[in-house]
Amino acid sequence: MLETMRWADHQLILLDQTKLPGEVCYFTCTNYQDVVDAIKRLVVRGAPAIGAAAAYGMVLAAWSGSQKDSAAFHEELGHAARELAASRPTAVNLFWALDRMKQRINPAQAPAMIYQTLLEEAHGILREDLILNQKMGRLGQELIPQAGSILTHCNAGALATGGYGTALGVIRAAHEAGKKVQVFADETRPLLQGARLTAFELMEENIPVTLITDSMAGSVMQKGWVDLVLVGADRITANGDVANKIGTYSLAVLAHAHGIPFYVAAPVSTFDLTLAAGEDIPIEERSPEEVRNIFGFQSAPLDVPVFNPAFDVTPHHLISAIITEKGIIHHPDQEIIKKIIL
Amino acid sequence: MLETMRWADHQLILLDQTKLPGEVCYFTCTNYQDVVDAIKRLVVRGAPAIGAAAAYGMVLAAWSGSQKDSAAFHEELGHAARELAASRPTAVNLFWALDRMKQRINPAQAPAMIYQTLLEEAHGILREDLILNQKMGRLGQELIPQAGSILTHCNAGALATGGYGTALGVIRAAHEAGKKVQVFADETRPLLQGARLTAFELMEENIPVTLITDSMAGSVMQKGWVDLVLVGADRITANGDVANKIGTYSLAVLAHAHGIPFYVAAPVSTFDLTLAAGEDIPIEERSPEEVRNIFGFQSAPLDVPVFNPAFDVTPHHLISAIITEKGIIHHPDQEIIKKIIL
Repeated sequence: MLETMRWADHQLILLDQTKLPGEVCYFTCTNYQDVVDAIKRLVVRGAPAIGAAAAYGMVLAAWSGSQKDSAAFHEELGHAARELAASRPTAVNLFWALDRMKQRINPAQAPAMIYQTLLEEAHGILREDLILNQKMGRLGQELIPQAGSILTHCNAGALATGGYGTALGVIRAAHEAGKKVQVFADETRPLLQGARLTAFELMEENIPVTLITDSMAGSVMQKGWVDLVLVGADRITANGDVANKIGTYSLAVLAHAHGIPFYVAAPVSTFDLTLAAGEDIPIEERSPEEVRNIFGFQSAPLDVPVFNPAFDVTPHHLISAIITEKGIIHHPDQEIIKKIIL
Repeated sequence: MLETMRWADHQLILLDQTKLPGEVCYFTCTNYQDVVDAIKRLVVRGAPAIGAAAAYGMVLAAWSGSQKDSAAFHEELGHAARELAASRPTAVNLFWALDRMKQRINPAQAPAMIYQTLLEEAHGILREDLILNQKMGRLGQELIPQAGSILTHCNAGALATGGYGTALGVIRAAHEAGKKVQVFADETRPLLQGARLTAFELMEENIPVTLITDSMAGSVMQKGWVDLVLVGADRITANGDVANKIGTYSLAVLAHAHGIPFYVAAPVSTFDLTLAAGEDIPIEERSPEEVRNIFGFQSAPLDVPVFNPAFDVTPHHLISAIITEKGIIHHPDQEIIKKIIL
């Protein structure tokens, strides 16, 4: 499997996910502004991967600032933290990772020492993410039948994380446990992460996958071809409401109407207990051009108005269970969430 | 508004809908095989428009056969009828129009006379379609509130018909009646008829339209932004089940879950009373390339398996009413359908 990101020679090397699957190429970040740019342009995407990339963004700021005096160094770190936090608004793992980095900054230490500490912390975030995805996979695969068909949306795979993946991690674990799983991958307009990334990842792993357009999900459920729906998450509120890629809410309604279980796989860092419910989550709206122009093909009148939210919110009553590295939260609500993740 | 098709100098001139909205160009059919090709490639699409185009295909066969002897002439007509009928399997208006044409063939008449009769019949089918769409519009707009937001899918507009449109005809009529309507147009993957054609038609008419991806329909309903859903149909069975563009079924389930009325607008020629229920409708599956490759952009691994049905079936219990030129069929079932359309 391709590495989502790698640190080498004081640079963050990101797999350029905007080019997959047609081209495998890399985007090298030499300063934190490059990381801001990469997150905004979705060179790196997926809530956990954004968090790890932002952590390395702080490391790059510390590296470039370490030649300056202490005041300028800390100013640089402050700028970086603010600009990285403003790169995308919905996935909470970004803020979680930045908070974790900021907590490691000891103003009494020399810049070079702080740089070392931040680098270790960023490595830690990335490494831990892989480990907890593997743990989530082991726990979550208990929910997968011995033979079954899983519908997923967007990409919650190795490419969205430090490796292995959240939703796709659970699918990987079921496959590794010898279960006969097959996957319907929604292509996930507008940016086609399902077609470009999920189909690609599953084919690399030899897990049977069938690509469909987002509009076909209801039809395959109607035919009885889907045993469960499994997606990732960008932010989960205290009551268990889930923000995830636009289209997730429709899938949850459809799954409910067909009596199909709807599962979410996300690490504990995706929970935002400061927000009571889904309506409090800021939802990013992206450029109309993503809808009017499909990777170079002008699909609509140039000036047609567009509504392009990147995420939607699925209320907790439509969610059968949330899979975390600390355990499976069945029928999520405020009480059981606190009990399991705190 | 652009004309979908025009007969001139013994040729059928079709607006090439595969090129809209980027290019306005025409595809000239000089023989029935050109019409078969145009229907297969969706140069002309939309159930009523396919029916009219097929009727002109029979005229082209009669024209090219009219220089031959009577036996060869009728053989040519037979070939044309069979090949046109095999061009697409789901929309019943195609078979309805071909039946209507075949009934006008009087073997006792000379080929030149039969050609004239068929030409008049084809003109009649096209002209009548415009008139009945206008009638459907007048009847159907009663269902539209004085101010309201309508979600539609694919293109059931002037471009799908002899003019004015079925679902978009109802919206046009409401707009002409001074109602403040605004439309959410699903882009309608894989072939983007919503983005390319519906957005284009509505902008030409100055009817406010907002383009969304198919995956966003549930989210705009959740926000309370949709007052009703209105779509066309490709075939309606005796019990009121509706085959329409893939994604329609999902919209019907979503509308039901949100307590939003779900309307279908279709001429009586769309009903197929020989089929008891929706599961009897043959559903066309199209090339995987339509999903893997978006008008030249390779969006997925080259060899990923794809499921690409062009239509799905919405059961009648999810349909609030079917609007026809003979009246509105509320809560459609076998009894009321017969009463209104026969």
